[in-house]
Amino acid sequence: MFKLFYLPDTASLAPHIILNRLGAAHELVKLGKNDGSLEAEEYLKLNPNRRVPTLIDGDLVLFESAAICMHLADSDPDSGLLPPLGSAKRAVAYKWLVFMTNSIQADMMFYFYKERFAKTPEGAEEVKEVGIERVTTFMSRLDDALSDGRPYLCGGQKTIVEDYLLMLGRWYMQMGQEENLKSMAHLYALLCVLEDDHYVKATYEAEGCSPLFID
Amino acid sequence: MFKLFYLPDTASLAPHIILNRLGAAHELVKLGKNDGSLEAEEYLKLNPNRRVPTLIDGDLVLFESAAICMHLADSDPDSGLLPPLGSAKRAVAYKWLVFMTNSIQADMMFYFYKERFAKTPEGAEEVKEVGIERVTTFMSRLDDALSDGRPYLCGGQKTIVEDYLLMLGRWYMQMGQEENLKSMAHLYALLCVLEDDHYVKATYEAEGCSPLFID
Repeated sequence: MFKLFYLPDTASLAPHIILNRLGAAHELVKLGKNDGSLEAEEYLKLNPNRRVPTLIDGDLVLFESAAICMHLADSDPDSGLLPPLGSAKRAVAYKWLVFMTNSIQADMMFYFYKERFAKTPEGAEEVKEVGIERVTTFMSRLDDALSDGRPYLCGGQKTIVEDYLLMLGRWYMQMGQEENLKSMAHLYALLCVLEDDHYVKATYEAEGCSPLFID
Repeated sequence: MFKLFYLPDTASLAPHIILNRLGAAHELVKLGKNDGSLEAEEYLKLNPNRRVPTLIDGDLVLFESAAICMHLADSDPDSGLLPPLGSAKRAVAYKWLVFMTNSIQADMMFYFYKERFAKTPEGAEEVKEVGIERVTTFMSRLDDALSDGRPYLCGGQKTIVEDYLLMLGRWYMQMGQEENLKSMAHLYALLCVLEDDHYVKATYEAEGCSPLFID
């Protein structure tokens, strides 16, 4: 039995979709953004960075969304949610997951939490502006990677990489970048495909998220 | 036969150590920081982000240092450089690798490339200052994780996580944070242990890096 501490439409979304995709028994613990639950002593013991998500798996207490996604995929290797150990396809999955977390996701924080990266309001505005530019460049790398006609980032099969991508695609839309994203035709088309998925819809419903790519 | 595109003492250091640790046949291609080799059309085809490292493994072209480290460990599962698939220890390795790449390494860029994150010199100075504070907080998380007496981050065995840590420990020293780092006694002690290693020393010699933690 897994336990997932989550906040709707945040970095917990991809692990939540994957739990549903695996059909894994799990308990959800909803945290609040401004109700002190992230700063509560008990939660800080699990996640000293006061971030979501945190996954509990027996004695294991795990944070970092991308790490949780990989661990969940590994917990059921027959699910095909990550390619086989040692394969080139698995390496490609690592590449995109790492790139998404250390470049796209990290730089999106400049937009959503600009005050954390500056000392003055002017500095914060600068960093936010730079954040949009950098994230747009990085998103276009994913569009380029899809331009050879492959349906998914690692080739012909959907992996945890796509659940991670959908999560970040939502955030990019929430950054007001719909027009930019639509100009990345391969990427936008994939995001529409990803949202039109039974497990994604079930997870949206559980978290109360609205679809952003399909009606 | 692997091929590693590298720049001394950069994000290619951990993959380079791991190649030596595995005894894997490999060819090194040294790039230059300011000689245009990162911007060369041929290199951009391999790594559109004009970053190092890039690993070539047959038909696979792989970027992102943490992804390369994981793929190298997976290429020789008996090496023990990553714990077994599906284990709690492997999940912990994912956690620290992801945290190091998306928080510590990403925020170190504020120090080393401050002008990339701001529009004005004043904004750049702000972001640099914030970078040192954020990285220090994140480094202290690793020190906390080691405070239960475990020799390495995933427990009793050295993994690729430690090679990644040593790489970032070097950068933190180069940020002028020796005093801060020495106050994180568990972490500093581990970095000294890590540097006193045959494969690390061989890699330093090949790249022309000086030791920073031992004489």
